Order: sequence, then structure tokens, then C-alpha cells
Amino acid sequence: MYKLLGNPKTRAGRVMWMLEELGVDYDINPCGPHDPAVAAVNPTGKIPALIDGDTVINDSTAILLHLGDKHQKLTYPLGSPERAQMMSVIFFATDAIEQPLWTFAKHSFVYPENVRVLDAVRPALRHEFGQAMTALDKMLGEQEFIMGDDFSTADIILGHLGGWAKGSGFGADEGRVGEYMSRVRSRPAWKAVLKVAATKSKDG
Amino acid sequence: MYKLLGNPKTRAGRVMWMLEELGVDYDINPCGPHDPAVAAVNPTGKIPALIDGDTVINDSTAILLHLGDKHQKLTYPLGSPERAQMMSVIFFATDAIEQPLWTFAKHSFVYPENVRVLDAVRPALRHEFGQAMTALDKMLGEQEFIMGDDFSTADIILGHLGGWAKGSGFGADEGRVGEYMSRVRSRPAWKAVLKVAATKSKDG
Repeated sequence: MYKLLGNPKTRAGRVMWMLEELGVDYDINPCGPHDPAVAAVNPTGKIPALIDGDTVINDSTAILLHLGDKHQKLTYPLGSPERAQMMSVIFFATDAIEQPLWTFAKHSFVYPENVRVLDAVRPALRHEFGQAMTALDKMLGEQEFIMGDDFSTADIILGHLGGWAKGSGFGADEGRVGEYMSRVRSRPAWKAVLKVAATKSKDG
Repeated sequence: MYKLLGNPKTRAGRVMWMLEELGVDYDINPCGPHDPAVAAVNPTGKIPALIDGDTVINDSTAILLHLGDKHQKLTYPLGSPERAQMMSVIFFATDAIEQPLWTFAKHSFVYPENVRVLDAVRPALRHEFGQAMTALDKMLGEQEFIMGDDFSTADIILGHLGGWAKGSGFGADEGRVGEYMSRVRSRPAWKAVLKVAATKSKDG
């Protein structure tokens, strides 16, 4: 059985979403970064980490791609135009959308206090996030999902970022982008994650 | 024939490195971002973009993965532990190493002037880059390449970042990491890129 290390309120949440979409069983240890359980399997101490038999995979996006490929769901064949397109979207998501959010978090509570400059950097992050939303709106057009009719791994990453953006006051809840975020975040698999997260946060 | 859009001095350089390693022919249009040739194929106006028949792929890392999968070189089979490991390294590279460098560039000349705060953000970027180098040193250990004995797509991305880091005064040129960077950057394929880049910058 898959074993996931990481608090569901972190990027471990998107791994859970993928596992729920795939309908596979998994155990979760809802630990934070640098927990001894994580340090034992990941030299950087980062969460999430997925243990799949003898393999330990770090980085949420790498985990999602591994799971999609292994179960041959929510992804596309190697070397296909669709695969290349989905990967472009994923790198756009982890670069243009996630980085302003993650940098906001880093200047809020991740970096050592003496290098945090949240107020100084905020206008740049808002600018960057706004540009990313404009690009996402264009990419989506009138499509149901980012790849068109298919719900894919890219939608999980984007949908997860939509929640993160809302939670940290960046938005992503208006117009076509907002409708798209509501659409993907209303899927039963994500609702199931929220339920597990509520239970697990009582535990830890 | 593959057609690459993007100045070799940008992340287009890592795509050229991959193409040279694969030994395939390609045309290059050494344009900058938002050039009409780019805008025509990519709504975000970003470079590089690779045109492969009817498919346009944006994002340098997505392009490298597509090429590796298509030619079945410098990568690993889908769903294999090695693939997952390589993807973890690639996301580590594009997140922990590339982001401080790219953020440095953005506050230097990419963002509109009214949101640039390079001096304020510099200590955080130095801190983050230093942490990434410590992690990379651990990940490398005594290995020749990041995946062990195999030179892979991940080494191209890391080696390209090594040059970027040196060029913008961040380092990555000391100890085991420095030796590794010299090792990968002395490959004939990268030397060939530098030669093309020198010619193309005369043209444009």
C-alpha cells in the first residue's frame, strides 16, 4: 500500500487528491517538514514524500506523474503531443502560479526571520500572480478542463493551487478561472480529501 | 525538422543541449520573449518554444522531457522508480535552484520597474540558493551524475543552472557541486551549443 508522508494542508493534499481519483488505498502520516519520519527518507526534509514499495518519491508533482503513469490514468502516453502539452501546463502551474504563492509563504513563515521582506516583495508577487491568471484564462478559453474534455493530472495541480490562492488572499476565484476552480474542486475525490484532512488534523 | 524559438542565452540553451546530445537536426530562431514569432505560437509569449510538426511545446523542461521520451534517450521508462527519481530531481532543480536565480533576474530586468526590489530580496535569495546547494551536494554524494552512472535529462537542467548561477554571481562552482558542474558542462554537446550561440548572437 502507498504510504504518504505530509500534512494534508500542504502539497500532500494534491497527492491525496490524485490517490482518491485513482481509487487506490493509502496510509497517511500527516507530519510536517523535517519530521524524523521525513528526514529518514528525504535528505531535504521536504514534504510530501510517497513511499511506493522500495521507492521513495519526493516532490508532489513528481509523485502525481509517477502515480498517473503507473496506473495509466489522468495522463497521456510518452512522447505524445498531449503529454507534451500537459507537461507545459504543469510547469506553467508550478512556475507562474505556484511560485508567487510559495514565495509569499516563504516570506511569511518559512525563511529565517532576518531575510523575510514580505511587504517589500508583495507588489511583485501580486503582479506576477495577476499575469499568471490572465495567461490561465487564455489557456482555458471555453474548455471544461485545461486539456479540453479530459480531466487530467494538470487539473489537480491547478485546482489545488486555486485553493491555496484563495487561502492566502490572492484570488483565482473570479470569471472563467474562478468557475473552472469551482468545477474541479467540487469533484468527489477532492471532497474526500477534505474529509480525511479534517480527521487527520484532529489527530495531529 | 525541429524548430526552436529562443535566444541560446536563455533557457533555449538547455533545449539546444538536449538536441545536441540526441544528435538530431534542428533550426533555431534566436528570438527574445514576446517576439511576433513566439506570440504566434504561445499565448504567454515565453521562450523557448519547440515546434515539432503540428505540436508546439512551451517550457524548456517540458520540451526536454518530450524529446527524451520521443527518442528514448537520457530518460527512463514511465512508472519506473528511476523515472520518479529523475522527476524529483528535476522539480528540485526548477524549484529550489532555478527559482532564486529567476527571481533575481525578475527583480533585475523582467518585472516592471515599480515592483522591483532587488536589494530587499537579495538576502532571501542567497539564503535559499545556499540551502539548495547543500541539498544538491548531499544528493550528488560521490556519484558521477545525479542519477549515478547515467547521464540524464536531469544533468542537462542542473548543468545549465550551474552556468546561470555562475553568470549571475550565485556560485555553484565550489566543492563537489563545482566539480560536477565542470564535468557536465565539458561535454561535447554543451560545447557545440556555445559555438552555435556565439554565431547566432552575431546574427541577432
